[in-house]
Amino acid sequence: MKKSLISALIAATAIFSISETAHACSRLVTDTQHGTLVIRTADWYSAAPFDGHVSVFPVASQRTMRGEVSSYKNAYQQWQTKYHTVSFEEHGAFNGLSGHTVNDQGLNVAALSQSDSEPFLAQHKDNGAPAVNIADVATFIAENYATVAEVKAALDNKAFQFAWADAPNGLEHAAGLHYSIVDKDGNIMLIQLGEGGVPQYELGDADSDLRVKTNDPFQNKQREFVSQFDIKDPKVAASLPWGIGGKQRNVRLLAVSEQLNTEGLNYQQTVARQRSAMDVAGTVPFEIQDPATGEDYPTFFTVQLNLDNGDIWFRSEMTRADMSFNIEDTKGFSQAMTANIQQQVDNGATELTWKAYQ
Amino acid sequence: MKKSLISALIAATAIFSISETAHACSRLVTDTQHGTLVIRTADWYSAAPFDGHVSVFPVASQRTMRGEVSSYKNAYQQWQTKYHTVSFEEHGAFNGLSGHTVNDQGLNVAALSQSDSEPFLAQHKDNGAPAVNIADVATFIAENYATVAEVKAALDNKAFQFAWADAPNGLEHAAGLHYSIVDKDGNIMLIQLGEGGVPQYELGDADSDLRVKTNDPFQNKQREFVSQFDIKDPKVAASLPWGIGGKQRNVRLLAVSEQLNTEGLNYQQTVARQRSAMDVAGTVPFEIQDPATGEDYPTFFTVQLNLDNGDIWFRSEMTRADMSFNIEDTKGFSQAMTANIQQQVDNGATELTWKAYQ
Repeated sequence: MKKSLISALIAATAIFSISETAHACSRLVTDTQHGTLVIRTADWYSAAPFDGHVSVFPVASQRTMRGEVSSYKNAYQQWQTKYHTVSFEEHGAFNGLSGHTVNDQGLNVAALSQSDSEPFLAQHKDNGAPAVNIADVATFIAENYATVAEVKAALDNKAFQFAWADAPNGLEHAAGLHYSIVDKDGNIMLIQLGEGGVPQYELGDADSDLRVKTNDPFQNKQREFVSQFDIKDPKVAASLPWGIGGKQRNVRLLAVSEQLNTEGLNYQQTVARQRSAMDVAGTVPFEIQDPATGEDYPTFFTVQLNLDNGDIWFRSEMTRADMSFNIEDTKGFSQAMTANIQQQVDNGATELTWKAYQ
Repeated sequence: MKKSLISALIAATAIFSISETAHACSRLVTDTQHGTLVIRTADWYSAAPFDGHVSVFPVASQRTMRGEVSSYKNAYQQWQTKYHTVSFEEHGAFNGLSGHTVNDQGLNVAALSQSDSEPFLAQHKDNGAPAVNIADVATFIAENYATVAEVKAALDNKAFQFAWADAPNGLEHAAGLHYSIVDKDGNIMLIQLGEGGVPQYELGDADSDLRVKTNDPFQNKQREFVSQFDIKDPKVAASLPWGIGGKQRNVRLLAVSEQLNTEGLNYQQTVARQRSAMDVAGTVPFEIQDPATGEDYPTFFTVQLNLDNGDIWFRSEMTRADMSFNIEDTKGFSQAMTANIQQQVDNGATELTWKAYQ
């Protein structure tokens, strides 16, 4: 009984946190001779620790949208998986929200927090397209589209829309998130909800500054901050700040990735080089507080992907234990499956134990 | 023939580098409920990449000092190993110099670069004690002493002295290094060669600022720099610089370790927490240049130790591959053995292949 009460309190705290200012998570895209590599951290308040799960949706899975989209006339209630998809979900604070997904076409969708969107979430106007609950939108995109161009066309053609104004499944408030979509060729699309509740789309590639995504402020404000530094100078690190906020991580990751040269490195060295860059410039240590909020938001886990060959690496920051698999390894499944990967890795598993999804 | 010439040129570059200003390597000591943990990075110019080896000296090994100590009347030419010792050597730029050693009593000796000592090396005065070549002094100490107090007494009693003025075995110039000795109880002694060639000793513990060691400037100047920040404030990170120099790494590692709370963590989580702290605050990325020198000095490998139970972790930064073993695992050896651990780890080995030492 007491335990249930504590669990309820923890859950309440977690739900409350989502409407707080959370400057958490970083993502870096690197174009290498061994493929387009993506790495992202998953950071959150230590009071509501993250719990990473992974789900697999084979081609032709019958899918039902989680949660409601009551602010929108049409909901995208059902769909069938077009592309085999591996989706990382967060079950500690976000009730299973899909935060980072990849499909077998090499399309990757990452959700990261963007607290500057929060005032505008309720202002998002229904454009009449079927709306997808925020808990599912990352995996929905990966299950249905193969390239950034396809996603952009689908949004333009109102094939679907983000249900920005509604709470993610099981949560109480709409979530300040933004999205970065990357395909195998290194095309990148940033999607953020700006002033007046208007979705903003921006296209780039791994050579552009969209290769790095952290959190608030909005991209134009990030650029203002970055413009005071000569990012191309290999000595610039000495003048950069070491804060844990979104601005500081963004400029550091831009500076380190500007010098990230993988020429002549073998595959393992190339993957390691990107990981080192994230660890030193993006990973958020435990117990350090953001002066803007007085909150910590340490990194709980890291996902790294090779969009060309389907390699996937998962590392728990709690134990620094890791696990790797290839998207092809999950193609034997005849139905949607899921695994509590972070708990399994923390407990020393070297191979995942899967169970049926929901 | 061509290959030999290139190798010779690389070797020449490496030797030259040692007399340059190198602000490389970091070391952190953390007192935890699971033991006294030590972690250190090994950083150097990318033009002369580090190559970490490990050697084991069983009790009663007959040892011969490497190199010469011609500036000193007496040399410590021969000794017999008193404590079973595991010694990490650097073979890429330092010709096998022992840079990080631990014995089965939990005594750990770390050599890190200290370029501010360079002007004073030639001024070191022979005190008549048997002198130990700098290539061997770290392993000599671990092979002969069990605690910081014993090492201090041995130096005071002139049982041995550091051959500061002479080149480490096989190198051309005396090396600007300083030493940090830590025992199982968390006692720490810093040894640096200061003005006038006078060795300076300072004692502390894991709660003191000696828990962090980076490189120049000297400890008193480090303290002057640190004093401008409120290191105990969990928000201090926002005001710290992100440079790769010794001063910047020192203040960052002090700030992160000040908040490093391992209470309630299990053993693996505790070890991971210290490693994360080093990765985010001490590890030096590739290709980033120090504005003071225009040189890079990335981290090539990391050694982490538990002085209480003998656990040892080695990670190559080139591949992010790692390996762990316990000092007890090396006690079956009947003679001194050695292994090129970094190459083996980079090549995917999960267990070390050893050969006879020299």
